[in-house]
Amino acid sequence: MTARTTTWVRELQDALGRDSVLTDPEVTASYARDQAMLVQAGVPAAVVLPRSTAEVVAVLQVASRHGVPVVPRGAGSGLVGGANAIDGGITLVLTRMDAVLEVAPADRLAVVQPGVVNKTLRDAVRGHGLFYPPDPASYDWCTIGGNLAVNSGGLCCVKYGVTTDYVLGLEVVLADGRVLRTGRRTVKGVAGYDLARLFVGSEGTLGVITEATLALRPSPPAPITLVASFGTSAQTGQVVERVVTSGLVPSMLEVMDQTCIRAVDDLIRADLDRDAQALLLAQSDSGGEAAAAEIALLTRLCEEAGADFVHSTDDPAEGDLLLTARRMALPALERLGSLLLDDVAVPRSQVATFIDGCVAIAAEAGLVVGVVGHAGDGNMHPTVVFDAADDDQRARAFTAFDAILALGLSLGGTVAGEHGVGTLKADWLEREIGPVSLSVHQAIKDALDPAGLLNPGKLFRRGHRADLGAVGALAGS
Amino acid sequence: MTARTTTWVRELQDALGRDSVLTDPEVTASYARDQAMLVQAGVPAAVVLPRSTAEVVAVLQVASRHGVPVVPRGAGSGLVGGANAIDGGITLVLTRMDAVLEVAPADRLAVVQPGVVNKTLRDAVRGHGLFYPPDPASYDWCTIGGNLAVNSGGLCCVKYGVTTDYVLGLEVVLADGRVLRTGRRTVKGVAGYDLARLFVGSEGTLGVITEATLALRPSPPAPITLVASFGTSAQTGQVVERVVTSGLVPSMLEVMDQTCIRAVDDLIRADLDRDAQALLLAQSDSGGEAAAAEIALLTRLCEEAGADFVHSTDDPAEGDLLLTARRMALPALERLGSLLLDDVAVPRSQVATFIDGCVAIAAEAGLVVGVVGHAGDGNMHPTVVFDAADDDQRARAFTAFDAILALGLSLGGTVAGEHGVGTLKADWLEREIGPVSLSVHQAIKDALDPAGLLNPGKLFRRGHRADLGAVGALAGS
Repeated sequence: MTARTTTWVRELQDALGRDSVLTDPEVTASYARDQAMLVQAGVPAAVVLPRSTAEVVAVLQVASRHGVPVVPRGAGSGLVGGANAIDGGITLVLTRMDAVLEVAPADRLAVVQPGVVNKTLRDAVRGHGLFYPPDPASYDWCTIGGNLAVNSGGLCCVKYGVTTDYVLGLEVVLADGRVLRTGRRTVKGVAGYDLARLFVGSEGTLGVITEATLALRPSPPAPITLVASFGTSAQTGQVVERVVTSGLVPSMLEVMDQTCIRAVDDLIRADLDRDAQALLLAQSDSGGEAAAAEIALLTRLCEEAGADFVHSTDDPAEGDLLLTARRMALPALERLGSLLLDDVAVPRSQVATFIDGCVAIAAEAGLVVGVVGHAGDGNMHPTVVFDAADDDQRARAFTAFDAILALGLSLGGTVAGEHGVGTLKADWLEREIGPVSLSVHQAIKDALDPAGLLNPGKLFRRGHRADLGAVGALAGS
Repeated sequence: MTARTTTWVRELQDALGRDSVLTDPEVTASYARDQAMLVQAGVPAAVVLPRSTAEVVAVLQVASRHGVPVVPRGAGSGLVGGANAIDGGITLVLTRMDAVLEVAPADRLAVVQPGVVNKTLRDAVRGHGLFYPPDPASYDWCTIGGNLAVNSGGLCCVKYGVTTDYVLGLEVVLADGRVLRTGRRTVKGVAGYDLARLFVGSEGTLGVITEATLALRPSPPAPITLVASFGTSAQTGQVVERVVTSGLVPSMLEVMDQTCIRAVDDLIRADLDRDAQALLLAQSDSGGEAAAAEIALLTRLCEEAGADFVHSTDDPAEGDLLLTARRMALPALERLGSLLLDDVAVPRSQVATFIDGCVAIAAEAGLVVGVVGHAGDGNMHPTVVFDAADDDQRARAFTAFDAILALGLSLGGTVAGEHGVGTLKADWLEREIGPVSLSVHQAIKDALDPAGLLNPGKLFRRGHRADLGAVGALAGS
């Protein structure tokens, strides 16, 4: 540890106490990266675990004073290296700020700290007949702060939207340690720029979220679950297109191909149809005759797309098992090899074409690509399976991964549906958004974090000062 | 016209043609202000009506080169002076860019130019079984560009949200004339900052929106409409609270007090209950048994709150008449005198308290305050009625107007629910958001429009350079 580092670490320890500032390399190593195992990560000089907004303020004041980069993070469930440590920097872990501060049924909202686990919030509001929809696959261990950072989705999005759709207000500690409170407790409000939604999805590059006011919905009725098996994955894409044009809004519409079906069935013995080339899982939570009508229409659309088998159930246990099967797709694939998990969202009209393209890319690469995803909203997670110890396979895997991203862009899609950009896709972000948008990103980053201390290198590469000068002088030319 | 003005006007005429650049004072005067009649407005040196994005680019290039302020506007239906002209500036009228460029049923989206009238879009998508929910009172003449500028709401919001909830992507011409395309055609997407939603609600201060990709919903079933009359306005607030805690989501939940009821009935002879102190109008568009159950529950909640009379109907003509009655509240009040129209949103738990407070403020001022609003989402429009020719009444009216805003803030609400901030409430914005948020607003404004040419003075007052320097140097201190 350099003398300079020793100085700022001591300042942090003075401000937060020694038990909140970890420097033992064996301990800090465990905070060095998220779940994106193949993405580069540095070694933090200190891991800091604040207990309050005031302590976050103290950390950012010390960091600004000494020019130390800060990587904010939660549980580390991220999939794009967004929480990966910076060499010599501070990794700011928000998991101790884990209080559900308020549940207000008469306003259908909750106020939480960033370290609250998604499932904890869901459980806390359920007793009030309320529902917090965003449900990433890691919902039983990921934190709301992380969800806010990448604007997480989940299985609910086809009907209920994503994290940002539930954000009413935020408390954010800015790069210099000032505390911004923005947004509201009201349903509507147009007083000023929508700063709350600017911070959501900004991956810790603009500020550290220390509190969130989140909208809730009334709990929906118990769902009816439908499962259908198909001879090709692309048939499930056809169902999606018919669902959209039929005006149907299921509460879940998921797809898994044979690779995923078999991997899951091997893992949890869910009695899935192992011979199917693809399964479609859907739910309606509209209740009563409305749910019955939706499931009847879905059944017909599946049959018309050529389903081999369609079955629906209102048995909660059977529905839960099918949902678990879908949620286990990624852990199940992990048993087959190393994974490169894609997160491409395409316009819903392009789901079938996208699935066909993934099959072709797998064949070209000579690798397995497990196709799983939120078909109903077009957000697909084709997952390249390979042997990381085999250099040739590894190279082909990255080629396939990139080909899938390029395919998504060519179909009018995005390289980041719900996992964020992080370290993994920073170059792809530039390719997707183009130079004008990139310069606007840089100008906003520069306005809020001029020294570039907050999660540097994530989301996008920061331009040189010369470039920023040109942007900053836009209208003065 | 000064020599300098003559120069840039000629440049605009060369670029767009003389018929697109109006300078006749009698003509330009008609573009000087929006519907906020009591708010200060300047005299534009030129009114420019571009026909394409390329022409908007040309206008902003000329404006930047010569340092001329630009006020973007649509039809001028705004209620806060957001479109009011700047002396010697350009008023940029987007109404000629009025094409619905695309309706894509398989992706449930539409792509429109900013000058498209809200109703035109609604009509264009209806034939595809689709629905664009945001429905401000002026929906039959306001433009989508204006809706985007202030993030308009309407009667639909209690179930369907506001304009920003339907924005997928935008094309924006920046202050220096560069064209930013941001957002997506997909349901989900987290690639970079949510710039689209930063521009929505920014009231023309950050860029000029020239195209929008908007999400659509399947058309809902025909609604059932409920009307209930009460002995006090506050009882309707009690109904709102019970609706929220009961998990009910009506597609409309509006309130009008006796002043509004009688004014409307005088104007359109809607056979309203003129003796009621307040009417509550509600709809359910859930269809079938679900709608029937929702209306039955609403009926019970109204009765339990002490309604004198509750009636529901699935007759479309009767429902439309009641809806028209609600929409005519403001035009009807205008016949009683000059108006100061408030736009306060409070947490739904505070609606009853807020209505009580407005009654007290009216008594204190010795003026009529017509209470009308979107009770179901807490966005209320108490409207002060007065004689503008009477200085004393005028002073008391502004005092009452301010007292209503202060009441809203004291209840955890916002001074701008859906109409925007504009000129009318720029000082109140500062009071609501506080100094840290204001400095972040200024830093973002400065990053995107450093010369301050886009709608200056609207939304918030721009700080002095010295202040901005302090903000810009946040983390460098």
